[in-house]
Amino acid sequence: MQPDLDFFHELADAAAKETLPRFRTNAAVTNKLESGFDPVTEADRSAEAAIRALIKENFPDHGIMGEEYGSEGLDAEYVWVIDPVDGTRAFISGLPVWGTLIGLYRNGRSIAGLMDQPFTGERYLADQNGAIYRGPDGQRTIHARDCGDLSAATLFTTSPHLFLPEEFPFYRAVEERVNLFRYGCDCYAYTLVAAGHADLVIENGLQAYDVGGLIAILEAAGAVMTDWQGGRPEQGGNIIAAGSRTVHAEALELLNG
Amino acid sequence: MQPDLDFFHELADAAAKETLPRFRTNAAVTNKLESGFDPVTEADRSAEAAIRALIKENFPDHGIMGEEYGSEGLDAEYVWVIDPVDGTRAFISGLPVWGTLIGLYRNGRSIAGLMDQPFTGERYLADQNGAIYRGPDGQRTIHARDCGDLSAATLFTTSPHLFLPEEFPFYRAVEERVNLFRYGCDCYAYTLVAAGHADLVIENGLQAYDVGGLIAILEAAGAVMTDWQGGRPEQGGNIIAAGSRTVHAEALELLNG
Repeated sequence: MQPDLDFFHELADAAAKETLPRFRTNAAVTNKLESGFDPVTEADRSAEAAIRALIKENFPDHGIMGEEYGSEGLDAEYVWVIDPVDGTRAFISGLPVWGTLIGLYRNGRSIAGLMDQPFTGERYLADQNGAIYRGPDGQRTIHARDCGDLSAATLFTTSPHLFLPEEFPFYRAVEERVNLFRYGCDCYAYTLVAAGHADLVIENGLQAYDVGGLIAILEAAGAVMTDWQGGRPEQGGNIIAAGSRTVHAEALELLNG
Repeated sequence: MQPDLDFFHELADAAAKETLPRFRTNAAVTNKLESGFDPVTEADRSAEAAIRALIKENFPDHGIMGEEYGSEGLDAEYVWVIDPVDGTRAFISGLPVWGTLIGLYRNGRSIAGLMDQPFTGERYLADQNGAIYRGPDGQRTIHARDCGDLSAATLFTTSPHLFLPEEFPFYRAVEERVNLFRYGCDCYAYTLVAAGHADLVIENGLQAYDVGGLIAILEAAGAVMTDWQGGRPEQGGNIIAAGSRTVHAEALELLNG
């Protein structure tokens, strides 16, 4: 039995109950130093525990791969891929561009996914029939945009400092060609591409759980998401997401020198 | 007669009516190229026009300094300082960390200010009696936090690329000492310091209208906001905002080499 999208809403609501009360607790820095209390770690762990409990209750035969509590049953037909708080540095610094990511893989391939940002009330949800957005400005089906070519693109990356020295020049070659580049968004940037507000995300060194919830959203919205060699993104690594095939191809050529 | 805080709410509501419908209009990039239509410029101009009209109607003797329509009556006792959309690159790229900034100066000194982010529903408002926040998580009086010292601080700057070559090493010296640094937030970062979620913002080359709405919010919340020489920030320039005097002093020392 395959889960429906209502179950994703249930998972997101359960996670938000754990993350949101721990967001913007101002004493974060000093408390962590003085008492070992760490709101983002608590949010991460308790949200993942809540998600895993619901999955096990409803789909005991499914596998789970999570950031905090590891992998189990990865040889199952269905495997859930969970990052309870993607963007922990955003979370720590009070910036609502972190998100809860939950993906569902079938035989290793993404078939559904969710990104939830509970502070702003933005939720992205997709299966193979389409991608929907629900936010303070309403609910709608989303579509990536085609900005024409790389010179018109808006590019996001989390931080230029994260690229390895041997990777950076290739990333920088793309940055030099785009219309606008921005830093600092983690999963939020991918959803901006899916919803047609931005055109390109390039990142490196990602885990499966950093992308597992996003792939279905981008693909159902008509965006392209691959590794830097153009292969499937399900296992993470160096990742590129683009609003159109043209922009994806242009960026991929520069990334591979 | 001095305006009360209700008048700031009125100004923010009028500005939001002009900015919000133009945010996340996906066709932004191609339309701008093909038809000259530019949502952020339209948002900027129409919001400032709405703000100026209300000020002139209610306070005809006051001066106004605005990003889009210039200065008038700067020799008046009261002068309004307006940036209808601070963070135009965030606005263009769909990221809700831009804001409408409205400050009121009396004899050249900030006495009240507002920052409004209408997509997330976050509004910061201050006069000399205190600073309040209203957002999706409720309304409250805000206070900056004291993180101890620079090594525990969360630092924001809009982008490291914006520093002049001769400034960058001094900024970088601070970046190397803090616990966490983040890019990409414009006015939103200052309000995170005012609300005690972050500790430090360092920027260069700002105009008066980039800071005019923020000064009262930070000062009323107990934060310190000056230029890089420790002087008053009302005219912009190179600006530093810190949650505590200790962090401000430590960063200022590094910025001045």
